Parts: sequence; C-alpha cells; structure tokens
Amino acid sequence: MNDMPTTRTERTRIRRHPERGTDAPAAIHAILDASFLCHVGFVLDGQPFVIPTIHARDGDRLYVHGASVGRMLQGGRDGLELCVTVTLMDGYVLGRSPFFHSVNYRSVVVFGRAALVTEPARKREALRLITNAVVRDRWEELREPTEQEFKATGVLEVPITEASAKIRVGGPGDNDEDASRPVWAGVVPVRLVPGEPELDPRSPPDLPPFDVSRLRV
Amino acid sequence: MNDMPTTRTERTRIRRHPERGTDAPAAIHAILDASFLCHVGFVLDGQPFVIPTIHARDGDRLYVHGASVGRMLQGGRDGLELCVTVTLMDGYVLGRSPFFHSVNYRSVVVFGRAALVTEPARKREALRLITNAVVRDRWEELREPTEQEFKATGVLEVPITEASAKIRVGGPGDNDEDASRPVWAGVVPVRLVPGEPELDPRSPPDLPPFDVSRLRV
Repeated sequence: MNDMPTTRTERTRIRRHPERGTDAPAAIHAILDASFLCHVGFVLDGQPFVIPTIHARDGDRLYVHGASVGRMLQGGRDGLELCVTVTLMDGYVLGRSPFFHSVNYRSVVVFGRAALVTEPARKREALRLITNAVVRDRWEELREPTEQEFKATGVLEVPITEASAKIRVGGPGDNDEDASRPVWAGVVPVRLVPGEPELDPRSPPDLPPFDVSRLRV
Repeated sequence: MNDMPTTRTERTRIRRHPERGTDAPAAIHAILDASFLCHVGFVLDGQPFVIPTIHARDGDRLYVHGASVGRMLQGGRDGLELCVTVTLMDGYVLGRSPFFHSVNYRSVVVFGRAALVTEPARKREALRLITNAVVRDRWEELREPTEQEFKATGVLEVPITEASAKIRVGGPGDNDEDASRPVWAGVVPVRLVPGEPELDPRSPPDLPPFDVSRLRV
C-alpha cells in the first residue's frame, strides 16, 4: 500500500463532522479498493454531470473508464477536472428524533485533473485492473479485447493526491434523555449479497460453476 | 404517480446505449422511489463536487437534504445547478471478453436548479418524506425535531422535469461465436440485504423488535 501523504486543501476539508474524516492514504485506499462503483462528477459548459462507473486503483492512481463516445471521455481529452466519489453503505442508524437518523458508511472523495490513458500497454493494464476490480482474476480467463473493443472504451487517470475519506460507525448519537423513549433505536447493518448465478444459456455444457466469492460486493 | 412529461434536452440525451434510456416519468419515479441514496453534483468556483445524501420524491419534485453549514446547502441558497444521480446495482454481467462485462442497473439523472425550502411546514413535510424514504412510517413514531435540529438541516428542492432513466437488464451481449468458449458467463444478481438489528443498549426494556421489512434497501 502506497503511503505518500495526500494534500489537504480547501476542497478536501471536511466541514460537517470533521471527526469522521481522514486524509490517511491507507484509509482512502482501503475504501477505494472495497468498492468498484463510483460516481464521477465533472463540469461541461458550466453544468455539473454525475455518472456512475467502475474504477480501479493502481498505487496512488485511480482509473475510471467509460465509453469513448461518452460525455466524460470526450471531455477527458482536455484534462477535465473530476470529483470521484465512492460510497459504501454499511448500516441504517435509527435514533429517537429525525435529526439523529443517519447511515453508517465509508466514503472517499478524490479531486483531480483527468488524464486520458493513451499508451496501449498502460491502457490494457488499467482495463485489466478495472475488470479484476469487479471479479477477481477475471481478465486472465478471458480472450483479449479486439482492436475495436479496445478503442470503444476510454480510460481516465486521476492522481489520488487530493482526497479525503469519511467514515461513520456506531449507534445513534441522540441524547441520553431521549434514550428512554419507547421507540426502537439502534443500527441495522446492511450489505450487498450476490444471488444465484444465472448461466448464459448459450454456454457450452459442463462448465464449472461460478464462485461468487470472486465478486467484489 | 405524476405523469407530467419530462423535457428532453441535450443534457438528458443518452449518448451511449440510447436503447437503455427512457424519459418516461413513471420509470424515472419508480427508480427514484426504489432508492434513498443519491449522489448530488454541483459546481463551486468552477470545481465539481459530488456528495452522497438521501433524497425523497413528492410528485414531480425531488428533495435532497444536507447540513445547513455544508457546501451544498451554502451554495444552494443561490439557486445552485444540481445533477442528482441515483444508481441501483442489480447484477454482475460476465461475458467472455472484458468489453462484454457490464452491470445490470437502474439509474436516474435529474438536472435542475436547486431551491432552498424555507417555509417551515413545507420543510417539515420534506424532512418527513426523507425520513420515511429510509424507514417506512418512521417519522410518525419519533419526537418532533427541536428548533435547533430543524435549523441544522437544510432541504433543497429540484423539479423532476429535466431527467432521464437508464436501465440495463439481461445477460452478456457478446457474439454467438464467443459463446462457445469454455469460460463461465452469465449474470449474478445482487441486492442489499439487512442484517440483524442491533438495539441501542441505552434503550428501555421490553421494546418490540424492529421489523427490517420497513427499510428501503
């Protein structure tokens, strides 16, 4: 794990509940690695856009991918400023007043200028990391992308240098005088759970079953 | 369900896989109602910010909330342009080449100018909807917010008029000639599953257990 310190800036300063925040690279990297879904924000013609996509981390670099014809990749060619946000929902927090309802979560925000990954070997490596971020060791059992497939997907790189993490854990924070109220309060943990794999009916017979523990959830 | 048509604009035009898109209000509303977690994008000083928060829908209006002292609410006072994105992950799609890996999902993007909800009765109703969007009928069993709690949370309203939904369902889209390859391909469904509720130890004795079917997951 890379431990180059991140840079604290006005953008990464956590205004609300600063005690939940950290800019420790180990914490930021762990959250980025625990999820593959991110939401990428960028500005085109002064308008904000937020699109969901899949990311992967390589040391202190974050890769996000998208359709080469899409808004993000078209803008990315010009060094687009991105805000990449990852949110993992860990639990529902139920207090005795609406204000003390919350969620337990882990989140990371990365700010930075996107660079289009053009060098073929690096782009292939980024796509390999993105593929394997979702299904462990998946790239190695697939055929290589065709030239056309390779061109259809674009990869942007953002340095993980201006970033912060925010983590909430624990029960509701309401006052002790409220705690005696006769209403259920506490935490309900939640997690993403894979269901039964559904084999593509076009598959050849006698394939070994898919091991869902390979999925990042 | 409100069926006022949405407005198709350049911002809501779906460039990639337009066949997955719809601007039918019924489809947009159903996805907004199926999730409480959204990612809100906005621009401050030319920089994109994306923050996770909780939303609720009231007819063709979307409410998002945040700390009154936070960036979004401070900016929201000035009619900030927002992009609110909701993403529900439904499954992993595994093809035989990296390019044909995908996820099944339902997503909505809403573009619009935020209006700060200031009128107390409307703000209370928005907070009630937001609270109950997470836990069904929760507001009604809680004490009312104090004046201080009420002020500490801000609510922004965005019209759901410039919006689009995108939905992917089904198996991998790879070519029939690839389908004979001896690698597992298909779909693994996934969903958020609540765990065992953990009662706040400060609670009075003999509370009825919490019914997790009240949670929106």
